[in-house]
Amino acid sequence: MDIMEKSLELHRKLKGKIAIRSTYPIKNKKDLALVYTPGVASSCLAIKDNKKEVYNLTAKNNTVAVISDGTAVLGLGDIGALAAIPVMEGKCAIFKEFADINAIPIVLDTKDVDELVKTISHLAPSFGGINLEDISAPRCFEVEKRLRDMLDIPVFHDDQHGTAIAVGAALINALRVVDIPLDKAKIVINGAGSAGIAISSFLIELGVKNLIVCDKNGILDPSEQDLNDSQILLSQKTNQKHVKGSLADALKGADAFIGVSVGNVVNKDMVKLMDKEPIIFALANPTPEISRDDALEAGAKIYGAGISNIPNQINNALVFPGLFKGALAHPVKQIDTEMEKAACHALAGLVSDKELSAEYIIPDVFNKDVVKVICKAIIDVKASQ
Amino acid sequence: MDIMEKSLELHRKLKGKIAIRSTYPIKNKKDLALVYTPGVASSCLAIKDNKKEVYNLTAKNNTVAVISDGTAVLGLGDIGALAAIPVMEGKCAIFKEFADINAIPIVLDTKDVDELVKTISHLAPSFGGINLEDISAPRCFEVEKRLRDMLDIPVFHDDQHGTAIAVGAALINALRVVDIPLDKAKIVINGAGSAGIAISSFLIELGVKNLIVCDKNGILDPSEQDLNDSQILLSQKTNQKHVKGSLADALKGADAFIGVSVGNVVNKDMVKLMDKEPIIFALANPTPEISRDDALEAGAKIYGAGISNIPNQINNALVFPGLFKGALAHPVKQIDTEMEKAACHALAGLVSDKELSAEYIIPDVFNKDVVKVICKAIIDVKASQ
Repeated sequence: MDIMEKSLELHRKLKGKIAIRSTYPIKNKKDLALVYTPGVASSCLAIKDNKKEVYNLTAKNNTVAVISDGTAVLGLGDIGALAAIPVMEGKCAIFKEFADINAIPIVLDTKDVDELVKTISHLAPSFGGINLEDISAPRCFEVEKRLRDMLDIPVFHDDQHGTAIAVGAALINALRVVDIPLDKAKIVINGAGSAGIAISSFLIELGVKNLIVCDKNGILDPSEQDLNDSQILLSQKTNQKHVKGSLADALKGADAFIGVSVGNVVNKDMVKLMDKEPIIFALANPTPEISRDDALEAGAKIYGAGISNIPNQINNALVFPGLFKGALAHPVKQIDTEMEKAACHALAGLVSDKELSAEYIIPDVFNKDVVKVICKAIIDVKASQ
Repeated sequence: MDIMEKSLELHRKLKGKIAIRSTYPIKNKKDLALVYTPGVASSCLAIKDNKKEVYNLTAKNNTVAVISDGTAVLGLGDIGALAAIPVMEGKCAIFKEFADINAIPIVLDTKDVDELVKTISHLAPSFGGINLEDISAPRCFEVEKRLRDMLDIPVFHDDQHGTAIAVGAALINALRVVDIPLDKAKIVINGAGSAGIAISSFLIELGVKNLIVCDKNGILDPSEQDLNDSQILLSQKTNQKHVKGSLADALKGADAFIGVSVGNVVNKDMVKLMDKEPIIFALANPTPEISRDDALEAGAKIYGAGISNIPNQINNALVFPGLFKGALAHPVKQIDTEMEKAACHALAGLVSDKELSAEYIIPDVFNKDVVKVICKAIIDVKASQ
């Protein structure tokens, strides 16, 4: 039985990967009077008088909503709200197991940006943070931006920023291995959806100067039709030499390739066009842009991917548990770029010079220190602001 | 330290009366691949192909949203979304402890009926049922009606129907004690908000023929100004003799008084106007319409109230856990009047002729059979439809 069948069987057995537990046993009428009427009125009135008390008297202080409209689920695309629930539940289970955060899966049956923004803003008061998930581009950019402007709790689209932080940490360490400074490296990103755009912007924030972004039509060019606003903005910021051409053209002399596109779009010949000691991050799921074997045979020095069972798994689960843990601890109003950069450097820094190698550029997702150092990074930035 | 202070202290210590637990430990990469990518895709695709699979593969089968806009919280009124969270969390804890249902508190920061309906309908796919809570009248009627028409999961405004079912069961048994048939009894209800209107409609469904409803201006009259649609409809269905006058006028010769209004609006002299062996249900919280001592001194045969620490506590917690348990078991599309009536008779029937007395007309909320018989009643009605 393969992993897909085993997983389906497990889901059928569990009938829900998360459940609620009551934190106080209700054994008698006195208990009932303490957790419910009439006693509960004292907490209601305390919050009515001072809104900040909601963080002391309810679960808001440690509860995140994991929200999707089901339009860009895994590599499956627009499968709808109901079919997205298993992913959201899985993410909530990871929040709990890795960071002891209470996360609630909420799928929405609208794809309209205005409706998404209104619905999420209306339900926000119950939560200490909002993890947007698997919302297709370019709608995800507007949904996140508008919610960040409206709400006083962190709103974080993990497919953008979580991925960017994990990739950033892996790239920092890969460049340590090959001894190329970030601002001298030539980086090629393939894929200009939410992850590709967010990674590009974040790498520029980290100090990358030479960045080319490709989509299915080759190097992103402002003259290309059908680009969305985010892609146009990005194409203006990158490819400063106005190179035109295919992905293969872009890869000539590149130090690193980052794929957030689809499987099998890179072949061995394309890897051979890159500079000596190429870095390949092939993050497409479930089939990477190029397999590890092919990449290494073609001369890749370092290979990382999103799939498990290989060295250097670049996984969002490295980032979001610690990031929200830190954001909820204070709490912070929004997770800003400084916090994201600090989280990225903290994650990269967990791999010591002694441990660092071509096969170990990013900590294991089960390393207990990961959540701790990212959480601390967020808190430290907040304290310094 | 009184119950209010003790409760506040407990809330401050707990920082949340409910929490999430993961139902499957994530110990290694294989576990992660089963509950999250790539394995989870098999469950997503199974639901995409057959929507009913969502009940087999996710927690939707046993998860209820407890939703409020904070406009009619306990006796505290419109205290806002944040201040309503402690009540919703308490209700969710009761759902878990009494019926092992996963309930999620969601407070909404809008009071607009259209926005409430749209928001709740958008977030419905994650849930197996929706418990509306503490939404002020008359908006609650429209919100519930429109959602019931739109959604394929049960929508239940507990302040209306839960209260009506509990009061109905208590009344059935009280009338057994004084040996008056339901269709011969003269019943007076004081309070024409959501609970009063729902109790009135439900008692008529149960077979009550002689019912007078009063509000703060006395007997409800179609000519009265400022009545909402539900009140006008109710005033046309009740008070068929077109009696005008005060609450005291209405009480002349009445067999039962049901108060869902405010404290201290009934005095001993008013009880003395009632028929022999009066039944008094004084449900206002935290101060009843008349105290137990006063009612009994004035000749009341049976006294019930919403407050604890007295015999005959008439409590919604008797109803909603078993009702949703039954509704989720099948699952049913909506909880209809036949199911509500069956639940009411099942609850009343738990008190045997031998046990029945003026001081024991309703089962204790900690009686484990309560959830069982109500759940079974719902399932039996569904099976017969």
